[in-house]
Amino acid sequence: MAKSQYEYVRQFEQNDSLLPATWLVVRIDGQGFTKFTTRHGFTKPNDIRALHLMNRSAKEVMESMTEIVISYGQSDEYSFVFSKDAKAYDRRASKLITLLVSRFTSAYVYYWSEFFPDTKLQFPPAFDSRVVQYPSDRIMRDYLCWRQVDCHINNMYNTCFWTLVNKGGMSNKDAEKRLSGTLSSDKNELLFGEFGINYNDEKEIFKKGSVLVRENTLVDVTTPEGKCAKRTKSTVVILHCDIIRDQFWNDRPELTRDRPTKSERKAERAKQREIELAAEAEAEEEAAAKRSRQCKAGETDNKAEDDA
Amino acid sequence: MAKSQYEYVRQFEQNDSLLPATWLVVRIDGQGFTKFTTRHGFTKPNDIRALHLMNRSAKEVMESMTEIVISYGQSDEYSFVFSKDAKAYDRRASKLITLLVSRFTSAYVYYWSEFFPDTKLQFPPAFDSRVVQYPSDRIMRDYLCWRQVDCHINNMYNTCFWTLVNKGGMSNKDAEKRLSGTLSSDKNELLFGEFGINYNDEKEIFKKGSVLVRENTLVDVTTPEGKCAKRTKSTVVILHCDIIRDQFWNDRPELTRDRPTKSERKAERAKQREIELAAEAEAEEEAAAKRSRQCKAGETDNKAEDDA
Amino acid sequence: MAKSQYEYVRQFEQNDSLLPATWLVVRIDGQGFTKFTTRHGFTKPNDIRALHLMNRSAKEVMESMTEIVISYGQSDEYSFVFSKDAKAYDRRASKLITLLVSRFTSAYVYYWSEFFPDTKLQFPPAFDSRVVQYPSDRIMRDYLCWRQVDCHINNMYNTCFWTLVNKGGMSNKDAEKRLSGTLSSDKNELLFGEFGINYNDEKEIFKKGSVLVRENTLVDVTTPEGKCAKRTKSTVVILHCDIIRDQFWNDRPELTRDRPTKSERKAERAKQREIELAAEAEAEEEAAAKRSRQCKAGETDNKAEDDA
Amino acid sequence: MAKSQYEYVRQFEQNDSLLPATWLVVRIDGQGFTKFTTRHGFTKPNDIRALHLMNRSAKEVMESMTEIVISYGQSDEYSFVFSKDAKAYDRRASKLITLLVSRFTSAYVYYWSEFFPDTKLQFPPAFDSRVVQYPSDRIMRDYLCWRQVDCHINNMYNTCFWTLVNKGGMSNKDAEKRLSGTLSSDKNELLFGEFGINYNDEKEIFKKGSVLVRENTLVDVTTPEGKCAKRTKSTVVILHCDIIRDQFWNDRPELTRDRPTKSERKAERAKQREIELAAEAEAEEEAAAKRSRQCKAGETDNKAEDDA
Repeated sequence: MAKSQYEYVRQFEQNDSLLPATWLVVRIDGQGFTKFTTRHGFTKPNDIRALHLMNRSAKEVMESMTEIVISYGQSDEYSFVFSKDAKAYDRRASKLITLLVSRFTSAYVYYWSEFFPDTKLQFPPAFDSRVVQYPSDRIMRDYLCWRQVDCHINNMYNTCFWTLVNKGGMSNKDAEKRLSGTLSSDKNELLFGEFGINYNDEKEIFKKGSVLVRENTLVDVTTPEGKCAKRTKSTVVILHCDIIRDQFWNDRPELTRDRPTKSERKAERAKQREIELAAEAEAEEEAAAKRSRQCKAGETDNKAEDDA
Repeated sequence: MAKSQYEYVRQFEQNDSLLPATWLVVRIDGQGFTKFTTRHGFTKPNDIRALHLMNRSAKEVMESMTEIVISYGQSDEYSFVFSKDAKAYDRRASKLITLLVSRFTSAYVYYWSEFFPDTKLQFPPAFDSRVVQYPSDRIMRDYLCWRQVDCHINNMYNTCFWTLVNKGGMSNKDAEKRLSGTLSSDKNELLFGEFGINYNDEKEIFKKGSVLVRENTLVDVTTPEGKCAKRTKSTVVILHCDIIRDQFWNDRPELTRDRPTKSERKAERAKQREIELAAEAEAEEEAAAKRSRQCKAGETDNKAEDDA
Repeated sequence: MAKSQYEYVRQFEQNDSLLPATWLVVRIDGQGFTKFTTRHGFTKPNDIRALHLMNRSAKEVMESMTEIVISYGQSDEYSFVFSKDAKAYDRRASKLITLLVSRFTSAYVYYWSEFFPDTKLQFPPAFDSRVVQYPSDRIMRDYLCWRQVDCHINNMYNTCFWTLVNKGGMSNKDAEKRLSGTLSSDKNELLFGEFGINYNDEKEIFKKGSVLVRENTLVDVTTPEGKCAKRTKSTVVILHCDIIRDQFWNDRPELTRDRPTKSERKAERAKQREIELAAEAEAEEEAAAKRSRQCKAGETDNKAEDDA
Repeated sequence: MAKSQYEYVRQFEQNDSLLPATWLVVRIDGQGFTKFTTRHGFTKPNDIRALHLMNRSAKEVMESMTEIVISYGQSDEYSFVFSKDAKAYDRRASKLITLLVSRFTSAYVYYWSEFFPDTKLQFPPAFDSRVVQYPSDRIMRDYLCWRQVDCHINNMYNTCFWTLVNKGGMSNKDAEKRLSGTLSSDKNELLFGEFGINYNDEKEIFKKGSVLVRENTLVDVTTPEGKCAKRTKSTVVILHCDIIRDQFWNDRPELTRDRPTKSERKAERAKQREIELAAEAEAEEEAAAKRSRQCKAGETDNKAEDDA
């Protein structure tokens, strides 16, 4: 189609590609969620339904943007870490942050009724998002540490605050004053000494937030020849664990390693194929054993019938 | 709360404030909408339900971001023009484009069932968005011209294409070939000569797209003293008109004028107050006339009764 | 030549093109000039040699970057205003600011001895530079107003300060204290009342700074046919005038008008050609008159000789 | 001083801070140097005076910007690598690239006559510059490899080209044609076979370019007590060596290591202090030996005199 005389306005579009070989972290945040949580009667300090809905929406995002290697969520925020080598949308900042936040919001509204079956959504919520570039693994990990420490600090404060209000009968203002200047140890003592609550017994999802990573799982498929077989599928799993210590990262070297070369990928596929075959063999063996058992049982039955 | 040792990662956040005194145009676009429209059985070439849903979502955006002065939508895209003087979020690009696209998407899913009562939403849709800065009124208007010309060209093509396919029984490929290289006049002739369709009779919303602007309307309120009164309310209205010619802009000088000074705003409010008062007086007069008519009717009734 | 395996590092270069249709103002500033002026014995408050050297360097810049329409300098700073339509180096910020500052610095050192014949340059000076985009004529003019007002305020202060020190025998500290909190009128009064100096009589270059614009001038050329002719040449001229009031801009409509169309340029050239021809005719007439006078003088001489 | 009403124009200045913890490489390039070298009669393919002037100017830059850890120059270009941790000018791109290029150009003109005593500078030269961010040591090193490979390829080509022209009597065009499509081995063969030139014997500065790094050297000072002492001084040294292989980097771990901690710096100073003291002791010993020798010589003299 012919270009119109107005096409020149495209010259005003500016390039916003991000630096290559750099971790890209996109964080989304609920906008005006104080009002939103009040209007929808969210449980304080944590609403488990809301957290599961956040996780479900984050999973949707990770499934549609496959270069995200790890995500971390708490409260009404979620951080998505794109691989250093991510190439999606030529690393254009606006494309990445808008598609991601749009997908997330869309899923949040779409799945709302699944997690809040008895609460009608009163108005469409919104999230903002931004992207930050981190040049090294260490700094990217420190970013995630920052968010998990923030989760811990906020959750401990909020647990105390709402315990004072809900169980201690304090006003919001008095609770705030009571907590002002207290250290972590004071808060632990307050919860245990005055309310018999052991903070360590609180749910991990509240204390640690949610961590989404990909894991290989085996699924059953039927081959074109009609045989049962095992295939590897990458699945997003939801964890509530410490991501500050090295343990988590040592257990998942794939998170921070460089993009594998062709031969590395080949070796990996070969290894995974072995796992599939071993699982198939085992399944086959089990099935055979089962058939044999059923057979024998059938023989016994037959015999019994014969005997009868 | 204490700053954690990880707080330093915030230093990597970069400022993305846009130039002051410049028109900001944010355009959102449906992502993967070919698949989306197919999966949800959209009518071709235009699905009126889908267009109304786009308009409803755009209205939601304009109501929440009051510095948008005009919006223009067609197909699965929408452009929002922020005032040159817009100050929201310090004109930070990422804030503006992500909140806007999130709000839009949220409304799209939220209002879906209102416009598609018989079609279940199969999966959460997504939109992207970007922002472009335009330094002068003329260039901002040329941007809108570009989109409306694009609407016209696409709609004429699509109208022909789907007429050839749906009424002419052609394959998609043959229809494409048939239209290749045709001018606007050829397409008009094709529609009229072969199918008796006058393109001018097509719906304005299809030919011109949708234009959202704010208009002052009078609403009835009850004063604390219990009196009926008129008040001015700024409402978003949806038009399907030409925005290329000067007429539209001459009729709405407020769209392109500079931010009014304090005294200009005062004069405006005074003028609007007069309009309110005039409307109140008229309403009062009408009510009095009505009461008087009812009175006379009552008298007549009474008289009749008396006579009886 | 073959691309090396290291060529990929070019992908890290980022695009920094500035917005089209926007005034670009590049300002350069002397770095560490307090030390520089001391080491080279600059006259206080103003060193006329240094100002002329700044102007000479700015002229060099304007002659090499033809899209600069006006420049303004004061003290150790200079602002260069590129036309809204400037296309040089695809409007890449880094190219514009580095070439400009490099050219300026180069000229400053190159021409030093011309303006400071008796002062050896002790070490190589340096300037920094930056670029700012201004979307409208009004704001670009306000930028220049800002700099000229700054020149006025600084010059008045410095004139008072150095008069108190040099003629009043005050210490720097006492002079500073004496001027603290004084208004413009106080300073005028101080100069006149105590030292008999009328600030208005100060040099315009000190009070107003320097303004560089291009002007058409006629130059004499010899045509291939050996005739004397007049041709138009665009020359950079140095003014010391008010650029805050409208007068300056009204007198020079070419500074702020849009890029002329082809036919406008043609008309302009035609008009300029007329001016050239008129000047040629006038010169020719004058030459003829001169020849005639010489002739007559010759005749007279001859006559005299004859007489003799 | 009071803010003027025009001060608002500063709001149009935009922040251009570069990413923290990232290598910053600023490269300067001669502008229009084909003309410049011709006009000043540069020797082809390499003018040793010009290369030394480039190195002198780069040294000036490194001495004024202490966060540059290594520089690399060839032909009319120079690259300056700022430490990952560099904090100068808040890492503002425009400040870094303009001050650097201004300082370089200034030095180039300032020192011209020192390196070209018999050639008058005809006009002020100019350089441009840009900055690129590199997130890892490996990529920063690859950048330098890219430039040194470029130096090698260009120098080999130019050596052949000018040999064919200057010694082979070819026209530029024929020389170009002769070299088109040749490999490195072909060029070596051409030089050796036809002109008896062993490319390996060419000057290292031509083949490898110039590398500037800082080195600790000991200098003699006189203490306030009048004693001779040794002190460490960081000096910029100029090398012409391979920076592609690991050797160079292994020998200089300080180039790529992280900013030393306080205790590391303390340890380093202590170690360096030992070196100073050892050198002082050695110098003292030597001086004593010298005195003793002189003494003995004196005694001998005396003895001789006595004997006499």
